[in-house]
Amino acid sequence: MDTPRIDLPISEIPRQWYNLAADLPPAPPLGPDGKPIDPAALAAVFPENLIEQEVSSQRWIDIPEEILEILLRWRPTPLRRAYALERHLGTPARIYYKDESVSPAGSHKPNTAVAQAWYNKQAGIKRLTTETGAGQWGSALSYACAQVGLGCKVFMVRVSFEQKPFRKVMMQTWGGQCIPSPSRETEAGRAILEKDPNSPGSLGIAISEAVESAVSDPLGETRYALGSVLNHVLLHQTVIGLEAKQQLALAGESKPDVIIGCAGGGSNFAGLANPYVADVLDGEEIEIVPVEPEACPTLTRAPYAYDFGDVAGMTPLLAMHTLGHTFVPPTIHAGGLRYHGMAPLVSAAVKAGIMQPRAYGQLECYEAAVTFARTEGIICAPETSHAIAAAMEEARKAKESGEPRVILFSFSGHGLLDLAGYEAYFAGALENYPLPEEVLARSLAVLEHLPKPE
Amino acid sequence: MDTPRIDLPISEIPRQWYNLAADLPPAPPLGPDGKPIDPAALAAVFPENLIEQEVSSQRWIDIPEEILEILLRWRPTPLRRAYALERHLGTPARIYYKDESVSPAGSHKPNTAVAQAWYNKQAGIKRLTTETGAGQWGSALSYACAQVGLGCKVFMVRVSFEQKPFRKVMMQTWGGQCIPSPSRETEAGRAILEKDPNSPGSLGIAISEAVESAVSDPLGETRYALGSVLNHVLLHQTVIGLEAKQQLALAGESKPDVIIGCAGGGSNFAGLANPYVADVLDGEEIEIVPVEPEACPTLTRAPYAYDFGDVAGMTPLLAMHTLGHTFVPPTIHAGGLRYHGMAPLVSAAVKAGIMQPRAYGQLECYEAAVTFARTEGIICAPETSHAIAAAMEEARKAKESGEPRVILFSFSGHGLLDLAGYEAYFAGALENYPLPEEVLARSLAVLEHLPKPE
Repeated sequence: MDTPRIDLPISEIPRQWYNLAADLPPAPPLGPDGKPIDPAALAAVFPENLIEQEVSSQRWIDIPEEILEILLRWRPTPLRRAYALERHLGTPARIYYKDESVSPAGSHKPNTAVAQAWYNKQAGIKRLTTETGAGQWGSALSYACAQVGLGCKVFMVRVSFEQKPFRKVMMQTWGGQCIPSPSRETEAGRAILEKDPNSPGSLGIAISEAVESAVSDPLGETRYALGSVLNHVLLHQTVIGLEAKQQLALAGESKPDVIIGCAGGGSNFAGLANPYVADVLDGEEIEIVPVEPEACPTLTRAPYAYDFGDVAGMTPLLAMHTLGHTFVPPTIHAGGLRYHGMAPLVSAAVKAGIMQPRAYGQLECYEAAVTFARTEGIICAPETSHAIAAAMEEARKAKESGEPRVILFSFSGHGLLDLAGYEAYFAGALENYPLPEEVLARSLAVLEHLPKPE
Repeated sequence: MDTPRIDLPISEIPRQWYNLAADLPPAPPLGPDGKPIDPAALAAVFPENLIEQEVSSQRWIDIPEEILEILLRWRPTPLRRAYALERHLGTPARIYYKDESVSPAGSHKPNTAVAQAWYNKQAGIKRLTTETGAGQWGSALSYACAQVGLGCKVFMVRVSFEQKPFRKVMMQTWGGQCIPSPSRETEAGRAILEKDPNSPGSLGIAISEAVESAVSDPLGETRYALGSVLNHVLLHQTVIGLEAKQQLALAGESKPDVIIGCAGGGSNFAGLANPYVADVLDGEEIEIVPVEPEACPTLTRAPYAYDFGDVAGMTPLLAMHTLGHTFVPPTIHAGGLRYHGMAPLVSAAVKAGIMQPRAYGQLECYEAAVTFARTEGIICAPETSHAIAAAMEEARKAKESGEPRVILFSFSGHGLLDLAGYEAYFAGALENYPLPEEVLARSLAVLEHLPKPE
C-alpha cells in the first residue's frame, strides 16, 4: 500500500531555528543618513528580544518550550507524497509537499505569529498592531495573540476589508480587532481620508497606520509585528524545512533534487529552503526555485538594490530585489505575492546564484490548482498555486528526460477563504498580467537616488 | 511540557469498521405494505456491496486497502487534549477531542464519502447523485468522487445554493456538478417549479431529485449516495471512535467517563460513540451524550416511531426518533442538525437507555464556540459548537464536584465556510428557537397512521 503521508513523531519536532544569516550574512539595513542603523533605534517598534534575533549571526537559536507547546498543536506538519498527481502526470519524478495548510489559520503564518506574540508577551508588551492585505497574516496574528494573551489590532486594506468580510470575522472570533485602513485612528489615516474620503487604502498606508498606532501608545505597551521579509520572521519559519529534511529521510530519500516555494515577502519560501541553502553552500547539488507571479516579478526582473520596505518610505532601507517601493501590482488573486520587495536573505541568495527564481501567470497557476485539487484532493490558496505550477513543470521535464527526480515543494496554505478566485477562474473572468517593460522602468526610477549595495 | 496532541502512528490505523448492528440489532425497515423490505428492492438506488453492508449483522468488516490509502491522507486524525480550555475553565476534568476537521473537506463526511464512492466504482457505477443542504456532504462526495474517478451530481437546496455560493465553487473545484434544487432536470423538480417558479427548495425535494436522477439513468450506471442516517454510513464513521480508543490509551487514560458528539442524522456522533457502546453493553460505565439543537429536538422530545426518511415519503419506513417527516425546523446556522429523524442505530441505543441526549440553544453554542476558538484556537462549525457547549457544561460540573472526569468529544468540522454565522452572532442578530409544544404536537400527527415499532 502506498503511504501518502510521512509523519514526523511529535518527539522529533525541531528544537532550534536555523539562521541563514550565519552562513550568508546580509547587507546591513541603512538609516535615513545612508549609514547602517543602530538596532536600538527600532526599540519603539519591536521588542528587544526580537531585535536581537533580527540582527543575530548565531547559526542555531533555541525555540522556547512555551512556543513549542503551541506549535505542537499542529506541528510537525505532514510531508505528503503526491502519488495521485504523479500518476496523473505519468512522471517518474517523486513529488513531495510540506503541508502548512493544517495550522489553525490555514497557512504557514502562525509559525512566526506565535513566536512574535510570545516574545512580545515576555517583554511585557500588552498588545500588537499589524497590517494585512488579503487577511492571512492578520488572521494568524489574531490567533497567536489569543493563545498567549495579548490584544491585537489589525489594519486591513479597506478594499480587501470590504471584499473579504469573512477574514474580519475570523480575526474577531479570535478576539482580534480588524479596522479598515485608512482609518480615523491615526494621523496617517486621517491625512489620507481628508484628501480622499473614499480611499480604497493600500498595504503601504496600512503599514504606516499600524506602526504609528504602536509607537504612539502613551504607555509604551504596544508594539508592531510584521508577517514576512525580516530576518527574524524567516528564522521562525525554518521549522518547515528542518522538519521536511527529517521526513524525506524517513521516506528513504537522500536529498531533494529541486525545492520549490511561492515567494511574496519570502518567509514561506525561505522557511522550506533556507535549511537546504546551508547544504548547497557545503557543495550539495540542489536546485532552489522561488516562484512569483509574472504580475509582480521582483526576483526575475528587478534589480538588487537598497529600497524602503513600505510605500511611504518610513522603514530603514533594506538591500533586496525590489520593483521600487511605489510599485502597485495588478489585483491578482494571490494577494500575498503582491509585495514590491523581497526578504533580504532570499534576495542575497538569489544574487549569489544559489536560487533560480521563476515567474508564472495566474491562469497557468489556477489550472495547476484545479488539477491538484482533483488529484491530491486539497484546495490550495492562490499563492500556493504558483509552487504547484512549478512543481508540475518540473515533473513534466522529468517525464521527458526519464529522470526520477525528487521534487519538494511548500504547500503554504489552503484556499477555503479564497474560493472567489476559483469562481472567477471557472467563469473565464481571469487574465494574466505580464508586466510591461515601460511600467517596470518607470517603477524602478525611485531607486536612482538611493544608496547602492556592494 | 504539555503535549496538546496525541497522534496515532499511521501503521496503527484501524483495518476494520465496527458494526453496532451486530450487538444492538435495529428494527427492520418497512416497505409501503408495512412489511420488512427485501434489500434487493434497493438495487436501483444503491450498489449491491453497500446494500450488503446496510443489512449486515457481522461485527467487524474489513476496510479495503484502496480505501485506506485515501483515508491515510489525513487519518488517523489527531486526538487533542484541551489544556488551554481546561485552564480557562479551571476544571479538574481532562478534556479530549477527536479532530475530524483536518480532512480535505473539513469534516468527518469524507470518511464515508470515500468508502461509498469506492464501493460504487467497484460495482461498475460511473456516477453518483446526492442532495446537500448546507453543502458539507455535497463537498465531501465531490472530493471522494474525484479521488476514485466517478462523476458526481449534487442537488443543493436552492436557498442554500444562493446564500452559500462558495460551497458550489468548492464542489466544482473537485469536478462535482452542483445544481440548485428544484431544477428542471427531474420530473420532481419540474412539478415543483410549475406550481412555484420561485420555490426556495428543501432537503426533501433535493432528495427526491437526486434519487430520481439516479434511478432514471437509462444505462443504469448511476446510483445515489446518502451522507448520514443509514447503517452503512455509520459503519464507515466508526474509524473515529476506534482511533480515539487507541489514542486515549496512549494518553494513559483507561476510559472516558463521558462521550459527547453533535447529532443531526447521527453519523458523526455514532462514529465516535458506537465503538464504545459495545463496552457499555459489556458493563463499562460511560455516559454517552448526543447533542442536538433545541430547535430540532429529535432525541430529546420526539418519540421512537416508524417514519419516512424524506419529506415526500418515498423512502422505506425507518424505526427512529422522529419529529415527523414534514417537520421544517427554523433556519438555525447548524444546517447539518436540521434533520427531522435520527439514525436507527442511534435511536435504538437512546431507546435502550444507553445514550442520554441533550439539547442546547444556538446562542449558548456560539458562546462556547468563541471561547473554544480563543483558547484551543480552532474555529468550529456551527454543528460542532453543540458538542463543545456540552463538553464545557460537563467540565463545569466536574469543577463543582471536584472530580477529574475524562471528557471525550467529537470535533466534527471547522467553520471556515460558516463564518457568516459568527458574524451574525457578533452582531447580536441570532436568537434561540425552543420548539413550541403545539408545533411539536402538530408535526407528530403525521406518525399516527404509520406502523409502530415493537
